[in-house]
Amino acid sequence: MAPLKLYGLVGSTNTARVTAVLNELDIEYEFVTVQLSTGAQKNPEFLAINPFGLLPALEDGDIKLFESRAIAKYLAIHYKGAGPDLLRSGNKAESAAVEVWLEVESQEFNPPISSLVFEVLVKKLLLGAVPDGDVVAAQEAKLGKVLDIYEKRLSESKYLAGDNFTLADLNHLPYLYALLKTSYAELVTSRPHLNAWWDDISARPAWKKTIAGFPY
Amino acid sequence: MAPLKLYGLVGSTNTARVTAVLNELDIEYEFVTVQLSTGAQKNPEFLAINPFGLLPALEDGDIKLFESRAIAKYLAIHYKGAGPDLLRSGNKAESAAVEVWLEVESQEFNPPISSLVFEVLVKKLLLGAVPDGDVVAAQEAKLGKVLDIYEKRLSESKYLAGDNFTLADLNHLPYLYALLKTSYAELVTSRPHLNAWWDDISARPAWKKTIAGFPY
Ligand SMILES: N[C@@H](CCC(=O)N[C@@H](CS)C(=O)NCC(=O)O)C(=O)O
Ligand SMILES: N[C@@H](CCC(=O)N[C@@H](CS)C(=O)NCC(=O)O)C(=O)O
Repeated sequence: MAPLKLYGLVGSTNTARVTAVLNELDIEYEFVTVQLSTGAQKNPEFLAINPFGLLPALEDGDIKLFESRAIAKYLAIHYKGAGPDLLRSGNKAESAAVEVWLEVESQEFNPPISSLVFEVLVKKLLLGAVPDGDVVAAQEAKLGKVLDIYEKRLSESKYLAGDNFTLADLNHLPYLYALLKTSYAELVTSRPHLNAWWDDISARPAWKKTIAGFPY
Repeated sequence: MAPLKLYGLVGSTNTARVTAVLNELDIEYEFVTVQLSTGAQKNPEFLAINPFGLLPALEDGDIKLFESRAIAKYLAIHYKGAGPDLLRSGNKAESAAVEVWLEVESQEFNPPISSLVFEVLVKKLLLGAVPDGDVVAAQEAKLGKVLDIYEKRLSESKYLAGDNFTLADLNHLPYLYALLKTSYAELVTSRPHLNAWWDDISARPAWKKTIAGFPY
Protein backbone atom coordinates (compact mmCIF):
# COMPACT_ATOMS: atom_id res chain seq x y z
CA MET A 1 0.00 0.00 0.00
CA ALA A 2 1.31 3.44 -0.92
CA PRO A 3 2.08 5.54 2.16
CA LEU A 4 0.16 8.71 2.87
CA LYS A 5 1.50 11.71 0.98
CA LEU A 6 1.28 15.10 2.69
CA TYR A 7 1.77 18.21 0.56
CA GLY A 8 2.82 21.14 2.67
CA LEU A 9 5.60 23.32 3.96
CA VAL A 10 7.52 23.17 7.24
CA GLY A 11 6.48 26.26 9.17
CA SER A 12 3.05 26.60 7.54
CA THR A 13 0.49 26.74 10.35
CA ASN A 14 -2.16 24.83 8.47
CA THR A 15 0.30 22.13 7.43
CA ALA A 16 1.43 21.80 11.06
CA ARG A 17 -2.15 21.03 12.14
CA VAL A 18 -2.00 17.89 10.00
CA THR A 19 1.59 16.99 10.88
CA ALA A 20 0.67 17.16 14.55
CA VAL A 21 -2.10 14.60 14.02
CA LEU A 22 0.21 12.33 12.02
CA ASN A 23 2.76 12.52 14.85
CA GLU A 24 0.16 11.96 17.59
CA LEU A 25 -1.09 8.85 15.85
CA ASP A 26 2.41 7.73 14.84
CA ILE A 27 1.41 7.41 11.20
CA GLU A 28 4.12 7.03 8.55
CA TYR A 29 3.91 9.42 5.63
CA GLU A 30 5.84 10.98 2.83
CA PHE A 31 6.26 14.77 2.96
CA VAL A 32 6.15 16.69 -0.32
CA THR A 33 7.32 20.28 0.01
CA VAL A 34 5.26 22.87 -1.87
CA GLN A 35 7.19 26.14 -1.97
CA LEU A 36 4.89 29.07 -1.31
CA SER A 37 7.71 31.49 -2.16
CA THR A 38 7.68 30.33 -5.79
CA GLY A 39 3.86 30.14 -5.94
CA ALA A 40 3.99 26.36 -6.43
CA GLN A 41 0.59 26.05 -4.73
CA LYS A 42 -0.99 27.63 -7.82
CA ASN A 43 0.60 25.20 -10.32
CA PRO A 44 -1.83 23.01 -12.30
CA GLU A 45 -0.51 19.79 -10.67
CA PHE A 46 -1.26 21.11 -7.20
CA LEU A 47 -4.57 22.70 -8.21
CA ALA A 48 -5.64 19.22 -9.38
CA ILE A 49 -5.42 18.13 -5.73
CA ASN A 50 -6.66 21.35 -4.11
CA PRO A 51 -8.53 23.68 -6.50
CA PHE A 52 -8.20 26.47 -3.91
CA GLY A 53 -4.41 26.36 -4.26
CA LEU A 54 -3.73 26.29 -0.53
CA LEU A 55 -1.59 24.08 1.72
CA PRO A 56 -1.92 21.43 3.02
CA ALA A 57 -3.31 18.56 0.95
CA LEU A 58 -3.19 14.82 1.50
CA GLU A 59 -3.27 11.76 -0.73
CA ASP A 60 -4.28 8.45 0.77
CA GLY A 61 -4.12 6.17 -2.26
CA ASP A 62 -6.92 7.36 -4.52
CA ILE A 63 -8.47 9.57 -1.88
CA LYS A 64 -7.41 13.20 -2.14
CA LEU A 65 -8.17 15.65 0.64
CA PHE A 66 -7.55 19.30 1.38
CA GLU A 67 -8.51 21.77 4.14
CA SER A 68 -6.35 21.06 7.17
CA ARG A 69 -9.27 20.45 9.54
CA ALA A 70 -10.88 17.95 7.17
CA ILE A 71 -7.59 16.08 6.83
CA ALA A 72 -7.06 16.09 10.60
CA LYS A 73 -10.57 14.72 11.14
CA TYR A 74 -10.13 12.07 8.45
CA LEU A 75 -6.89 10.84 10.02
CA ALA A 76 -8.43 10.82 13.51
CA ILE A 77 -11.34 8.72 12.21
CA HIS A 78 -9.46 6.24 10.05
CA TYR A 79 -6.10 5.86 11.81
CA LYS A 80 -7.17 5.99 15.42
CA GLY A 81 -5.98 2.44 16.05
CA ALA A 82 -2.47 3.79 16.17
CA GLY A 83 -2.85 6.28 19.04
CA PRO A 84 -5.27 8.04 21.39
CA ASP A 85 -8.88 8.48 20.23
CA LEU A 86 -8.68 12.16 19.41
CA LEU A 87 -12.45 12.31 18.81
CA ARG A 88 -13.64 10.37 21.92
CA SER A 89 -16.13 8.69 19.64
CA GLY A 90 -17.15 6.09 22.20
CA ASN A 91 -18.62 8.71 24.54
CA LYS A 92 -21.66 10.65 23.30
CA ALA A 93 -21.30 13.65 25.62
CA GLU A 94 -17.55 13.94 25.21
CA SER A 95 -17.62 13.53 21.43
CA ALA A 96 -20.33 16.21 21.28
CA ALA A 97 -18.02 18.54 23.23
CA VAL A 98 -15.21 17.72 20.78
CA GLU A 99 -17.44 18.74 17.85
CA VAL A 100 -18.44 21.98 19.60
CA TRP A 101 -14.86 23.04 20.41
CA LEU A 102 -13.59 22.02 16.98
CA GLU A 103 -16.12 24.49 15.58
CA VAL A 104 -15.26 27.16 18.14
CA GLU A 105 -11.64 26.93 16.98
CA SER A 106 -12.66 27.18 13.34
CA GLN A 107 -15.33 29.88 13.65
CA GLU A 108 -14.43 32.05 16.64
CA PHE A 109 -10.72 31.55 17.40
CA ASN A 110 -9.16 31.15 13.96
CA PRO A 111 -10.40 34.33 12.25
CA PRO A 112 -8.88 36.82 14.74
CA ILE A 113 -5.73 34.83 15.55
CA SER A 114 -4.88 34.08 11.91
CA SER A 115 -5.31 37.76 10.97
CA LEU A 116 -3.21 38.89 13.90
CA VAL A 117 -0.43 36.37 13.17
CA PHE A 118 -0.47 37.39 9.52
CA GLU A 119 0.03 41.05 10.46
CA VAL A 120 2.61 40.73 13.22
CA LEU A 121 4.55 37.61 12.23
CA VAL A 122 4.08 36.67 8.57
CA LYS A 123 4.10 40.25 7.22
CA LYS A 124 6.92 41.40 9.48
CA LEU A 125 9.23 38.40 9.52
CA LEU A 126 8.53 36.64 6.26
CA LEU A 127 7.26 39.26 3.82
CA GLY A 128 9.22 42.24 5.13
CA ALA A 129 6.04 44.34 5.15
CA VAL A 130 4.57 46.64 7.78
CA PRO A 131 1.63 45.50 9.93
CA ASP A 132 -1.62 47.44 9.53
CA GLY A 133 -2.16 49.04 12.93
CA ASP A 134 -5.96 49.22 12.63
CA VAL A 135 -6.24 45.54 11.74
CA VAL A 136 -3.90 44.59 14.59
CA ALA A 137 -5.90 46.58 17.15
CA ALA A 138 -9.25 45.22 15.99
CA GLN A 139 -8.14 41.58 15.86
CA GLU A 140 -6.30 41.81 19.18
CA ALA A 141 -9.49 43.05 20.83
CA LYS A 142 -11.59 40.35 19.16
CA LEU A 143 -9.16 37.60 20.11
CA GLY A 144 -8.99 38.83 23.70
CA LYS A 145 -12.76 38.44 24.08
CA VAL A 146 -12.62 34.93 22.66
CA LEU A 147 -9.74 34.00 24.96
CA ASP A 148 -11.69 35.24 27.99
CA ILE A 149 -14.23 32.54 27.22
CA TYR A 150 -11.43 29.96 26.86
CA GLU A 151 -10.01 31.06 30.21
CA LYS A 152 -13.36 30.37 31.89
CA ARG A 153 -13.81 27.06 30.10
CA LEU A 154 -10.31 25.91 31.05
CA SER A 155 -10.91 26.85 34.69
CA GLU A 156 -13.71 24.25 34.65
CA SER A 157 -12.13 21.41 32.66
CA LYS A 158 -8.55 20.39 31.97
CA TYR A 159 -9.00 20.24 28.21
CA LEU A 160 -11.53 21.95 25.96
CA ALA A 161 -13.76 18.91 25.57
CA GLY A 162 -13.31 17.52 29.09
CA ASP A 163 -10.70 15.40 30.87
CA ASN A 164 -8.89 14.23 27.75
CA PHE A 165 -6.63 15.78 25.14
CA THR A 166 -8.53 15.73 21.84
CA LEU A 167 -8.40 17.07 18.32
CA ALA A 168 -10.24 20.15 19.62
CA ASP A 169 -7.14 21.05 21.64
CA LEU A 170 -4.68 20.01 18.95
CA ASN A 171 -6.22 22.19 16.26
CA HIS A 172 -5.27 25.28 18.30
CA LEU A 173 -1.55 24.49 18.48
CA PRO A 174 -0.22 26.02 15.24
CA TYR A 175 -1.59 29.54 15.63
CA LEU A 176 -0.95 29.68 19.38
CA TYR A 177 2.65 28.63 18.74
CA ALA A 178 3.00 31.42 16.18
CA LEU A 179 1.32 34.03 18.40
CA LEU A 180 3.63 33.17 21.29
CA LYS A 181 6.61 34.05 19.11
CA THR A 182 5.36 37.64 18.88
CA SER A 183 4.98 40.59 21.23
CA TYR A 184 1.30 39.60 21.56
CA ALA A 185 2.16 36.49 23.61
CA GLU A 186 0.62 38.14 26.66
CA LEU A 187 -2.81 37.43 25.22
CA VAL A 188 -2.08 33.87 26.34
CA THR A 189 0.39 34.23 29.21
CA SER A 190 -1.78 36.74 31.09
CA ARG A 191 -4.60 34.20 31.39
CA PRO A 192 -3.52 31.55 33.92
CA HIS A 193 -5.74 28.62 32.94
CA LEU A 194 -5.24 29.24 29.25
CA ASN A 195 -1.50 29.45 29.79
CA ALA A 196 -1.40 26.22 31.84
CA TRP A 197 -3.34 24.45 29.09
CA TRP A 198 -0.94 25.82 26.47
CA ASP A 199 2.07 24.64 28.51
CA ASP A 200 0.52 21.20 28.76
CA ILE A 201 -0.55 20.68 25.14
CA SER A 202 2.59 22.23 23.63
CA ALA A 203 4.82 19.93 25.71
CA ARG A 204 3.46 16.84 23.97
CA PRO A 205 6.20 14.94 22.10
CA ALA A 206 4.09 14.95 18.91
CA TRP A 207 4.03 18.75 18.93
CA LYS A 208 7.76 19.06 19.73
CA LYS A 209 8.39 16.82 16.73
CA THR A 210 6.06 18.95 14.57
CA ILE A 211 7.91 22.21 15.18
CA ALA A 212 11.42 20.83 14.70
CA GLY A 213 12.87 22.82 11.81
CA PHE A 214 10.33 25.66 12.00
CA PRO A 215 11.82 28.97 10.82
CA TYR A 216 10.25 30.87 13.76
CA MET B 1 -37.13 11.14 27.23
CA ALA B 2 -37.16 14.91 26.95
CA PRO B 3 -37.37 16.08 23.35
CA LEU B 4 -34.53 18.04 21.79
CA LYS B 5 -34.68 21.74 22.58
CA LEU B 6 -33.42 24.14 19.91
CA TYR B 7 -32.72 27.74 20.94
CA GLY B 8 -32.85 30.03 17.95
CA LEU B 9 -34.79 32.51 15.90
CA VAL B 10 -36.83 31.99 12.74
CA GLY B 11 -34.93 33.79 9.97
CA SER B 12 -31.49 33.43 11.61
CA THR B 13 -29.19 31.82 9.04
CA ASN B 14 -27.23 29.82 11.58
CA THR B 15 -30.40 28.59 13.26
CA ALA B 16 -31.78 27.53 9.87
CA ARG B 17 -28.73 25.30 9.29
CA VAL B 18 -29.82 23.24 12.28
CA THR B 19 -33.54 23.38 11.53
CA ALA B 20 -32.82 22.06 8.04
CA VAL B 21 -31.05 19.01 9.50
CA LEU B 22 -33.88 18.41 11.98
CA ASN B 23 -36.37 18.56 9.10
CA GLU B 24 -34.27 16.32 6.80
CA LEU B 25 -34.05 13.67 9.51
CA ASP B 26 -37.65 14.18 10.62
CA ILE B 27 -36.63 14.70 14.23
CA GLU B 28 -39.15 16.11 16.71
CA TYR B 29 -37.97 19.07 18.74
CA GLU B 30 -39.11 21.98 20.82
CA PHE B 31 -38.24 25.44 19.49
CA VAL B 32 -37.31 28.13 22.00
CA THR B 33 -37.22 31.62 20.50
CA VAL B 34 -34.31 33.81 21.59
CA GLN B 35 -35.00 37.40 20.55
CA LEU B 36 -31.89 39.02 19.15
CA SER B 37 -33.69 42.39 19.02
CA THR B 38 -33.84 42.47 22.83
CA GLY B 39 -30.32 41.08 23.25
CA ALA B 40 -31.67 37.92 24.90
CA GLN B 41 -28.67 35.96 23.57
CA LYS B 42 -26.48 37.80 26.10
CA ASN B 43 -28.66 36.97 29.13
CA PRO B 44 -27.01 34.82 31.83
CA GLU B 45 -29.40 31.90 31.22
CA PHE B 46 -28.47 31.72 27.55
CA LEU B 47 -24.76 32.34 28.19
CA ALA B 48 -24.86 29.26 30.45
CA ILE B 49 -25.64 27.22 27.32
CA ASN B 50 -23.47 29.16 24.85
CA PRO B 51 -20.79 31.34 26.47
CA PHE B 52 -20.32 33.12 23.13
CA GLY B 53 -23.90 34.41 23.29
CA LEU B 54 -24.78 33.41 19.74
CA LEU B 55 -27.65 31.46 18.20
CA PRO B 56 -28.32 28.58 17.80
CA ALA B 57 -27.85 26.21 20.73
CA LEU B 58 -29.26 22.76 21.38
CA GLU B 59 -30.08 20.72 24.45
CA ASP B 60 -30.34 16.96 24.12
CA GLY B 61 -31.10 15.95 27.70
CA ASP B 62 -27.92 16.77 29.63
CA ILE B 63 -25.87 17.37 26.51
CA LYS B 64 -25.62 21.05 25.57
CA LEU B 65 -24.24 22.10 22.20
CA PHE B 66 -23.63 25.32 20.31
CA GLU B 67 -22.04 26.31 16.98
CA SER B 68 -24.50 25.46 14.21
CA ARG B 69 -22.08 23.20 12.32
CA ALA B 70 -21.28 21.18 15.44
CA ILE B 71 -24.98 20.74 16.16
CA ALA B 72 -25.68 19.75 12.56
CA LYS B 73 -22.88 17.17 12.67
CA TYR B 74 -24.05 15.80 16.02
CA LEU B 75 -27.59 15.31 14.72
CA ALA B 76 -26.35 13.69 11.52
CA ILE B 77 -24.24 11.24 13.57
CA HIS B 78 -26.73 10.35 16.29
CA TYR B 79 -30.09 10.60 14.55
CA LYS B 80 -29.25 9.24 11.14
CA GLY B 81 -31.61 6.28 11.59
CA ALA B 82 -34.47 8.63 10.86
CA GLY B 83 -33.43 9.84 7.39
CA PRO B 84 -30.71 9.85 4.73
CA ASP B 85 -27.10 9.36 5.92
CA LEU B 86 -25.98 12.95 5.51
CA LEU B 87 -22.36 11.98 6.25
CA ARG B 88 -22.06 8.89 3.97
CA SER B 89 -20.17 7.27 6.81
CA GLY B 90 -20.24 3.81 5.24
CA ASN B 91 -18.09 4.93 2.29
CA LYS B 92 -14.51 6.02 3.03
CA ALA B 93 -13.96 8.08 -0.13
CA GLU B 94 -17.38 9.73 -0.04
CA SER B 95 -17.23 10.51 3.68
CA ALA B 96 -13.77 12.04 3.13
CA ALA B 97 -15.26 14.28 0.44
CA VAL B 98 -18.04 15.26 2.84
CA GLU B 99 -15.44 16.33 5.44
CA VAL B 100 -13.51 18.31 2.81
CA TRP B 101 -16.56 20.21 1.53
CA LEU B 102 -17.90 20.81 5.02
CA GLU B 103 -14.62 22.59 5.72
CA VAL B 104 -14.67 24.45 2.41
CA GLU B 105 -18.09 25.82 3.38
CA SER B 106 -16.85 26.83 6.81
CA GLN B 107 -13.43 28.24 5.83
CA GLU B 108 -13.72 29.53 2.25
CA PHE B 109 -17.42 30.10 1.49
CA ASN B 110 -18.82 31.35 4.79
CA PRO B 111 -16.50 34.29 5.48
CA PRO B 112 -17.22 36.24 2.27
CA ILE B 113 -20.90 35.29 1.94
CA SER B 114 -21.74 36.03 5.57
CA SER B 115 -20.04 39.45 5.33
CA LEU B 116 -21.82 40.25 2.09
CA VAL B 117 -25.23 39.17 3.41
CA PHE B 118 -24.64 41.21 6.55
CA GLU B 119 -23.93 44.33 4.50
CA VAL B 120 -26.61 44.05 1.84
CA LEU B 121 -29.43 42.24 3.64
CA VAL B 122 -29.11 42.40 7.44
CA LYS B 123 -27.86 45.99 7.59
CA LYS B 124 -30.25 47.26 4.94
CA LEU B 125 -33.42 45.36 5.73
CA LEU B 126 -33.17 44.58 9.41
CA LEU B 127 -30.98 47.27 10.97
CA GLY B 128 -31.89 50.18 8.70
CA ALA B 129 -28.20 50.96 8.17
CA VAL B 130 -26.19 51.68 5.04
CA PRO B 131 -23.92 48.99 3.50
CA ASP B 132 -20.19 49.75 3.47
CA GLY B 133 -19.33 49.93 -0.23
CA ASP B 134 -15.70 48.90 0.21
CA VAL B 135 -16.61 45.82 2.21
CA VAL B 136 -19.29 44.88 -0.31
CA ALA B 137 -16.88 45.15 -3.26
CA ALA B 138 -14.11 43.18 -1.54
CA GLN B 139 -16.39 40.38 -0.35
CA GLU B 140 -18.22 40.15 -3.66
CA ALA B 141 -14.90 39.64 -5.44
CA LYS B 142 -13.73 37.07 -2.90
CA LEU B 143 -17.00 35.16 -3.07
CA GLY B 144 -16.95 35.18 -6.87
CA LYS B 145 -13.56 33.44 -6.89
CA VAL B 146 -14.79 30.81 -4.46
CA LEU B 147 -17.94 30.24 -6.52
CA ASP B 148 -15.84 29.75 -9.67
CA ILE B 149 -14.34 26.72 -7.94
CA TYR B 150 -17.80 25.49 -6.96
CA GLU B 151 -18.97 25.90 -10.56
CA LYS B 152 -16.16 23.63 -11.76
CA ARG B 153 -16.75 21.10 -9.00
CA LEU B 154 -20.48 20.97 -9.74
CA SER B 155 -19.80 20.46 -13.43
CA GLU B 156 -18.05 17.22 -12.43
CA SER B 157 -20.37 15.86 -9.76
CA LYS B 158 -24.04 16.39 -8.97
CA TYR B 159 -23.45 17.26 -5.34
CA LEU B 160 -20.37 18.63 -3.60
CA ALA B 161 -19.27 15.29 -2.16
CA GLY B 162 -20.39 13.10 -5.09
CA ASP B 163 -23.66 11.56 -6.24
CA ASN B 164 -25.57 12.10 -3.03
CA PHE B 165 -27.02 15.07 -1.17
CA THR B 166 -25.06 15.41 2.09
CA LEU B 167 -24.53 17.75 5.01
CA ALA B 168 -21.84 19.45 2.91
CA ASP B 169 -24.56 20.67 0.54
CA LEU B 170 -27.08 21.41 3.28
CA ASN B 171 -24.74 23.68 5.24
CA HIS B 172 -24.70 26.10 2.30
CA LEU B 173 -28.47 26.60 2.16
CA PRO B 174 -29.03 29.41 4.69
CA TYR B 175 -26.58 31.94 3.28
CA LEU B 176 -27.34 31.12 -0.36
CA TYR B 177 -31.02 31.60 0.37
CA ALA B 178 -30.29 35.00 1.91
CA LEU B 179 -27.94 36.05 -0.91
CA LEU B 180 -30.56 35.16 -3.51
CA LYS B 181 -32.95 37.64 -1.88
CA THR B 182 -30.55 40.47 -2.73
CA SER B 183 -29.33 42.23 -5.86
CA TYR B 184 -26.22 40.00 -5.65
CA ALA B 185 -28.20 36.90 -6.68
CA GLU B 186 -26.37 36.90 -10.00
CA LEU B 187 -23.30 35.54 -8.23
CA VAL B 188 -25.26 32.28 -8.21
CA THR B 189 -27.62 32.55 -11.18
CA SER B 190 -24.83 33.45 -13.63
CA ARG B 191 -23.05 30.14 -12.94
CA PRO B 192 -25.11 27.38 -14.58
CA HIS B 193 -23.97 24.32 -12.61
CA LEU B 194 -24.01 26.20 -9.34
CA ASN B 195 -27.48 27.48 -10.13
CA ALA B 196 -28.79 24.01 -11.06
CA TRP B 197 -27.39 22.63 -7.79
CA TRP B 198 -29.05 25.47 -5.87
CA ASP B 199 -32.38 24.82 -7.60
CA ASP B 200 -32.11 21.15 -6.68
CA ILE B 201 -31.08 21.46 -3.03
CA SER B 202 -33.40 24.37 -2.26
CA ALA B 203 -36.40 22.43 -3.63
CA ARG B 204 -36.08 19.77 -0.93
CA PRO B 205 -39.19 19.60 1.27
CA ALA B 206 -37.04 19.89 4.41
CA TRP B 207 -35.70 23.24 3.21
CA LYS B 208 -39.13 24.52 2.16
CA LYS B 209 -40.31 23.70 5.66
CA THR B 210 -37.28 25.46 7.17
CA ILE B 211 -37.95 28.79 5.48
CA ALA B 212 -41.70 28.91 6.17
CA GLY B 213 -42.23 32.08 8.19
CA PHE B 214 -38.90 33.67 7.28
CA PRO B 215 -39.12 37.49 7.27
CA TYR B 216 -37.17 37.69 3.99
N1 LIG C 1 -8.55 26.79 5.44
C1 LIG C 1 -7.32 26.30 4.84
C2 LIG C 1 -6.31 27.41 4.82
C3 LIG C 1 -5.05 27.00 4.12
C4 LIG C 1 -4.04 28.14 3.96
O1 LIG C 1 -4.41 29.33 4.00
N2 LIG C 1 -2.75 27.75 3.77
C5 LIG C 1 -1.69 28.71 3.57
C6 LIG C 1 -0.40 28.22 4.22
S1 LIG C 1 -0.53 28.15 6.00
C7 LIG C 1 -1.41 28.83 2.07
O2 LIG C 1 -1.35 27.83 1.37
N3 LIG C 1 -1.21 30.07 1.57
C8 LIG C 1 -0.81 30.27 0.22
C9 LIG C 1 -1.71 31.21 -0.54
O3 LIG C 1 -2.53 31.91 0.09
O4 LIG C 1 -1.58 31.23 -1.77
C10 LIG C 1 -6.82 25.09 5.65
O5 LIG C 1 -7.09 25.02 6.85
O6 LIG C 1 -6.17 24.20 5.08
N1 LIG D 1 -20.42 30.37 14.19
C1 LIG D 1 -21.70 30.53 14.84
C2 LIG D 1 -22.29 31.86 14.46
C3 LIG D 1 -23.57 32.13 15.20
C4 LIG D 1 -24.12 33.53 14.93
O1 LIG D 1 -23.39 34.45 14.52
N2 LIG D 1 -25.45 33.69 15.17
C5 LIG D 1 -26.12 34.96 14.99
C6 LIG D 1 -27.53 34.76 14.45
S1 LIG D 1 -27.52 34.08 12.80
C7 LIG D 1 -26.27 35.63 16.37
O2 LIG D 1 -26.62 34.98 17.34
N3 LIG D 1 -26.02 36.95 16.45
C8 LIG D 1 -26.23 37.69 17.65
C9 LIG D 1 -25.05 38.47 18.13
O3 LIG D 1 -24.07 38.62 17.34
O4 LIG D 1 -25.08 38.92 19.29
C10 LIG D 1 -22.62 29.38 14.44
O5 LIG D 1 -22.44 28.84 13.33
O6 LIG D 1 -23.50 28.98 15.22
